[in-house]
Amino acid sequence: MNVNGRHYRTIWTEGEGEGETLFIIDQTTLPHEFRVRALQSVDDVCSAIRDMWVRGAGLIGATAAWGVWIAARTAPAGDFCGFMTRSMDKLRTTRPTASNLAWALERQKKALAGLSGEEAVRVARAEAQAIADEDADFCRRIGEHGLSIIKEVAERHPDRAVNILTHCNAGWLAFVDYGSALSPVYAAFDAGIPVHVWVDETRPRNQGASLTAWELSRHGVPHDLIADNAGGHLMQHGMVDLVITGADRVTRCGDAANKIGTYLKALAAFDNKVPFYVALPSSTYDFTLRDGVRDIPIEERNADEVRVVSGLSKGGKREDVLICPPETPARNWAFDVTPSRLITGLITERGVCHASENGILSLYPERRNA
Amino acid sequence: MNVNGRHYRTIWTEGEGEGETLFIIDQTTLPHEFRVRALQSVDDVCSAIRDMWVRGAGLIGATAAWGVWIAARTAPAGDFCGFMTRSMDKLRTTRPTASNLAWALERQKKALAGLSGEEAVRVARAEAQAIADEDADFCRRIGEHGLSIIKEVAERHPDRAVNILTHCNAGWLAFVDYGSALSPVYAAFDAGIPVHVWVDETRPRNQGASLTAWELSRHGVPHDLIADNAGGHLMQHGMVDLVITGADRVTRCGDAANKIGTYLKALAAFDNKVPFYVALPSSTYDFTLRDGVRDIPIEERNADEVRVVSGLSKGGKREDVLICPPETPARNWAFDVTPSRLITGLITERGVCHASENGILSLYPERRNA
Repeated sequence: MNVNGRHYRTIWTEGEGEGETLFIIDQTTLPHEFRVRALQSVDDVCSAIRDMWVRGAGLIGATAAWGVWIAARTAPAGDFCGFMTRSMDKLRTTRPTASNLAWALERQKKALAGLSGEEAVRVARAEAQAIADEDADFCRRIGEHGLSIIKEVAERHPDRAVNILTHCNAGWLAFVDYGSALSPVYAAFDAGIPVHVWVDETRPRNQGASLTAWELSRHGVPHDLIADNAGGHLMQHGMVDLVITGADRVTRCGDAANKIGTYLKALAAFDNKVPFYVALPSSTYDFTLRDGVRDIPIEERNADEVRVVSGLSKGGKREDVLICPPETPARNWAFDVTPSRLITGLITERGVCHASENGILSLYPERRNA
Repeated sequence: MNVNGRHYRTIWTEGEGEGETLFIIDQTTLPHEFRVRALQSVDDVCSAIRDMWVRGAGLIGATAAWGVWIAARTAPAGDFCGFMTRSMDKLRTTRPTASNLAWALERQKKALAGLSGEEAVRVARAEAQAIADEDADFCRRIGEHGLSIIKEVAERHPDRAVNILTHCNAGWLAFVDYGSALSPVYAAFDAGIPVHVWVDETRPRNQGASLTAWELSRHGVPHDLIADNAGGHLMQHGMVDLVITGADRVTRCGDAANKIGTYLKALAAFDNKVPFYVALPSSTYDFTLRDGVRDIPIEERNADEVRVVSGLSKGGKREDVLICPPETPARNWAFDVTPSRLITGLITERGVCHASENGILSLYPERRNA
């Protein structure tokens, strides 16, 4: 997508040969500062994922894949295999919920089986690039498939914009490009369909306020920021036509882990007969799990993410402020699971399907025995 | 309740005769600073309500009642009636959703009918004091009735604390004393029943983080602050035994307007078979309305309450920080309505009843024809 007139992906390399360097957009300083960072070592890559310089299902996967390339480049000649195994283990444990992470590492592991040295570096680079390109391509297709859903609503309401509520950031910043939940929104906007997005702030890390609002603003898509608490009221009063969110892991039966609070919006959508869609590329499925509420591991993060809010002070400085008494303890689960019964459909790169095992397998028949 | 070893109500007078002055706790500077303010004029009282130095259903009512006393004291001799009418109109329009405001003004209007001058001042003072005392007394009784609900859960789980989730602040700061939703919690804690409170942060104004956490901490009640997004996840995993919230207006059929986001918690409680109680004194009923979603007016407040977060900077200064791009528009509805079908019961000063017209009228038979 475009930032200040230049086309960016969220992760890319510059230079050639030994001078080739991996770059990312540091998402912790947005929206107040657009900062690009170079990642030089496996530890850099682990920090980038763990400390959320990069975040979002697709981008976590792509970053881990590029991390394997960095591991291969920096592996000592005498301990290539050991170093690669330790590096992949480190990368795998940076964050527990998104399945794209394990999926990307698994792809790299298969691609690198039996290889070492220069050849491994070359293959790891090609695989990382393929994962990134595929992520962008799949997200673009998610936009095409989701567009038809938005178009249908627009045809029923030619007199006004289509109101779409989204939670967290599942835009291009969460992937390599385009995004999942926002890809249909961009596609509709670019096709001239009037859309308006309700942007959930998404506490505690405010990815809606800081990233989704920033993305939509850069692209010119009309939107309003709202508190996470507001969506139910809007739906009760007919002010939401569609909910579209992303996902961090979806089971073979269609249960979807996504940013904490997604489940509450799904309940409100169901209660008010508002269609609720989850958009995801196939790398987000976990075909080994069925019951998402029971089986998807939910990351618990530092309590200070709840207690302390970051923003721009009146003096124009980034500042952290404490919003509770200093002694107040907090808990901070990062995701929740929306049961498939609350999901109208899944928007994938292969089309839209029912959020059920049969629905998913109709698009991914090769996973029937996975 | 006690603050730093001194007993406080949220509103009180000091001095006598013409020197008697109305005081409140300024709730906009909590939890970082405990500041008491004097209110000298009707305009002071209107600002205090509108700008939320005082907030919460009961306290808004009591403050308006004391405002009528100030109006009577400051009315010009030649225009007593005109001044009183204009003052009451000003007070009535400070905030639209809480029914306690109109209720308190109606009580004052009846008490003052036909009176003026010194006699009106005396009667307005007595009525304001009666409204405040009754609010405290009713809240104390809500605590007694709610205690039995908590006791029952504690008896089923003698091995652990009772986990209660609450939204916004319906503690003693929201009333004259004791509170509504938190009154049963204090009663249980004081009775030696182990309780633990999940405190919803309550965006956008963070009354949970700043007021409920502060209250519970002062009283020693174990609690954890959570993002508003977290409650559904907690309920899915059996970590909430009860939800108790306050209310700003409850219709004769039991629909409850309360802080925005309450409806989402009620949906999650219903979906997970967690009992969901609304605690309120009778002053919060609006017996003229039936359908709350359709008919309760919902206040929309300044968008900057969503865009800007207040807190304590690392330097120990209160600071406002912008959490979104400077150009981002926001919308800010302050309340939503929870339909009675999602409410397990209403905890009132007269006991616990079903959230339905029959349930409510069984406790308030005198309102059958209201």
